[in-house]
Amino acid sequence: MTTPKTDGPTVSPLAPASFPELPKIDGVRFAAGAVGIKKANRVDVMLAEIAPGSSIAGVFTRSATRSAAVLDCQAKLAGLSGDEGFAIVPPEAGFAIVVNSGNANTFTGKRGVTDVDLIAAAAASALDLPASHVFTSSTGVIGEPLPATKITDALPKIAASLDASATEPAARAIMTTDTFPKGAVTTLDLDGTPVTIMGFAKGSGMIAPDMATMLGYIFTDAAIAPAALQAMLSACNVQSFNAVTVDSDTSTSDTVLMAATGLAGNAPLTAPHEGFQAALLTVMQDLAHQIVRDGEGATKFVEVRVSGADSDEDATRVARSIANSPLVKTAIAGEDPNWGRIVMAVGKSGAKADRDLLTIRFGDILVAENGWVAESYTEDAGAAYMKQQELLVDVDLGVGDGAATVWTCDLTHGYIQINADYRS
Amino acid sequence: MTTPKTDGPTVSPLAPASFPELPKIDGVRFAAGAVGIKKANRVDVMLAEIAPGSSIAGVFTRSATRSAAVLDCQAKLAGLSGDEGFAIVPPEAGFAIVVNSGNANTFTGKRGVTDVDLIAAAAASALDLPASHVFTSSTGVIGEPLPATKITDALPKIAASLDASATEPAARAIMTTDTFPKGAVTTLDLDGTPVTIMGFAKGSGMIAPDMATMLGYIFTDAAIAPAALQAMLSACNVQSFNAVTVDSDTSTSDTVLMAATGLAGNAPLTAPHEGFQAALLTVMQDLAHQIVRDGEGATKFVEVRVSGADSDEDATRVARSIANSPLVKTAIAGEDPNWGRIVMAVGKSGAKADRDLLTIRFGDILVAENGWVAESYTEDAGAAYMKQQELLVDVDLGVGDGAATVWTCDLTHGYIQINADYRS
Repeated sequence: MTTPKTDGPTVSPLAPASFPELPKIDGVRFAAGAVGIKKANRVDVMLAEIAPGSSIAGVFTRSATRSAAVLDCQAKLAGLSGDEGFAIVPPEAGFAIVVNSGNANTFTGKRGVTDVDLIAAAAASALDLPASHVFTSSTGVIGEPLPATKITDALPKIAASLDASATEPAARAIMTTDTFPKGAVTTLDLDGTPVTIMGFAKGSGMIAPDMATMLGYIFTDAAIAPAALQAMLSACNVQSFNAVTVDSDTSTSDTVLMAATGLAGNAPLTAPHEGFQAALLTVMQDLAHQIVRDGEGATKFVEVRVSGADSDEDATRVARSIANSPLVKTAIAGEDPNWGRIVMAVGKSGAKADRDLLTIRFGDILVAENGWVAESYTEDAGAAYMKQQELLVDVDLGVGDGAATVWTCDLTHGYIQINADYRS
Repeated sequence: MTTPKTDGPTVSPLAPASFPELPKIDGVRFAAGAVGIKKANRVDVMLAEIAPGSSIAGVFTRSATRSAAVLDCQAKLAGLSGDEGFAIVPPEAGFAIVVNSGNANTFTGKRGVTDVDLIAAAAASALDLPASHVFTSSTGVIGEPLPATKITDALPKIAASLDASATEPAARAIMTTDTFPKGAVTTLDLDGTPVTIMGFAKGSGMIAPDMATMLGYIFTDAAIAPAALQAMLSACNVQSFNAVTVDSDTSTSDTVLMAATGLAGNAPLTAPHEGFQAALLTVMQDLAHQIVRDGEGATKFVEVRVSGADSDEDATRVARSIANSPLVKTAIAGEDPNWGRIVMAVGKSGAKADRDLLTIRFGDILVAENGWVAESYTEDAGAAYMKQQELLVDVDLGVGDGAATVWTCDLTHGYIQINADYRS
């Protein structure tokens, strides 16, 4: 049994040792400000300014009740590109991203739409951009009107403090119930030109609409055509932000935006580039894993690896079924090597499976095969393994070549405490 | 915040005042015995004997990893009928049902199959029936070999105590982590002939494979042809046992069997009969609701009613998305009228929905409409409503005529406590 986490700013036991040094990205400047959206003196607005000539791309929640800001981002990307999902950039104007925490501006009717427009207009005015080049996100409680004028009034002053090195304040400004800021960076050589990929994210319930919601912002100085940027962002998203789950709930606000300024001077990538995409994936997986590590009440970081499925889709179905099962997650919280619950989760997933072909491992420990517990398995070995903080649940379905990996955390008293008490 | 339930035999706060008087059904006798499957002196075997000439029908889990007993029941029903799902009855032999608690005989390889055959053979011998007329269920821990000889050795003695009035001992024998036995009964007039429908069930996690799993046994003295019996059982199952969820997990052992002895003497029903089906539905819903009321850690009984959906399937999708959402369930545990989480659950369901057409009510209280909180709604009214033990969450999607109702309970520290500690 885990010890319930106390309320307040206790940092997750799974947090990285420290926030990484996030380097400057040529063509991107950040600022943060405290405008008092929910609490006085809490830094709650992040502004990013992105140089003219940049490419921008985005991926968003598929929720049918998505927020006004998400709908606005999607419309603007579609408008810029003449299509949905990526932007053909008019070279004369840069871009801005404005994010507030403390209020999600979701399910706020027509007023919510107006508030998005007000914020975009204020940022456009402060930075001399068209409003159609300003992307906004809001995260926090839902159903309450956003005090937009607090943001619009403060934007000129926040804009005046834009600074390429203000990456950590920017990462902190978007936090809600997060117990630590989440950043990641990598560099690579792009045909002779060194380029940097840097990003930060927030999220603590995956994905709790009124306190967490997943947001991510990624920047690179590489030159990448918009369609190629969108293609790589979408591809990496499948194996990063879309491959983590804390509680199976889907936010109304999930947004990942990525900008490529091109100021590194490489020959522009006009199609997905294997090396760049691999580097981008490490940054996005790093951020996604940090979200799981900050999962509400989490005390264990769990990788669920499924192979031998009829298809990759089936493998994903099984991995999610295991990772979202309350019974599996509570067993892990209790450090109980309860592999029977894994069998149950495979069975209920809807994927093609055969009880007698299933192989289950905890890390390197063979637990079950041929429709029964493995002869070599001992409950003591399983129990000792479960005491670790980082766990691997490995399932081979034995029916094909499909594979998928999903990351999750355990389900503890801490989750109940955070979510049964929030807002009351 | 709810008070954590302590371990042990504390009865759920949502339990009915008492176990109902379950009357005799002509043609059915029950016996129960303590054979020591998991614990000494615990009544853990139930035997039901059903008279020759009866019809029998069943519905089962759809899990891909279902237990040996479930597979055996399905094969026997298919064999009796020449089809799957209902039995054409050879009039010369009766039937038996043998259920043990304490061990699920699931994921026990070839030995599990042999153990089912041993139990069926022993019951057949004790009651002078063909083994193909003996249906078995096992519930309890999974992955451990069933000590079948304890059951087979005891069956002659248990059979000797068969008694038509032993309904409550039978209902108690199938319990595992249930905190109360679950029974229901109704009577109706079938074209001048009074008939009775009586049943009992078990289940406490919906559906936890290694401790609870849902089992149900229903008996009537009405004369009903097997195909009609199966059709009515399947139809009622959709709106009863398949419309409840405690934790979204699906058992490997779920089984509902129904027998109709025909000894009431009515003109045999050869097709589904509206009055009988309605009466059967009340019994099955009563039992299904009792399972939710005994949900692990439950402190609230919640009806989720969805209307205005594009189809009944979409309505079910939305109702299940709400009823299974950990964030909705923890909010209810915390007595927090957090309607934003309902919006989230509608959005993630995959059903057709439009934020601005959605109407949400808590009981009779209008909470949200037209894409925003209702003008008349006050947080005080919502908070007062949430303090009740029986709650109604009513969602109108406003896009069609589809409707569905699902019943669930809240997600509390009690659930974590039961499931993180079990087996350790």
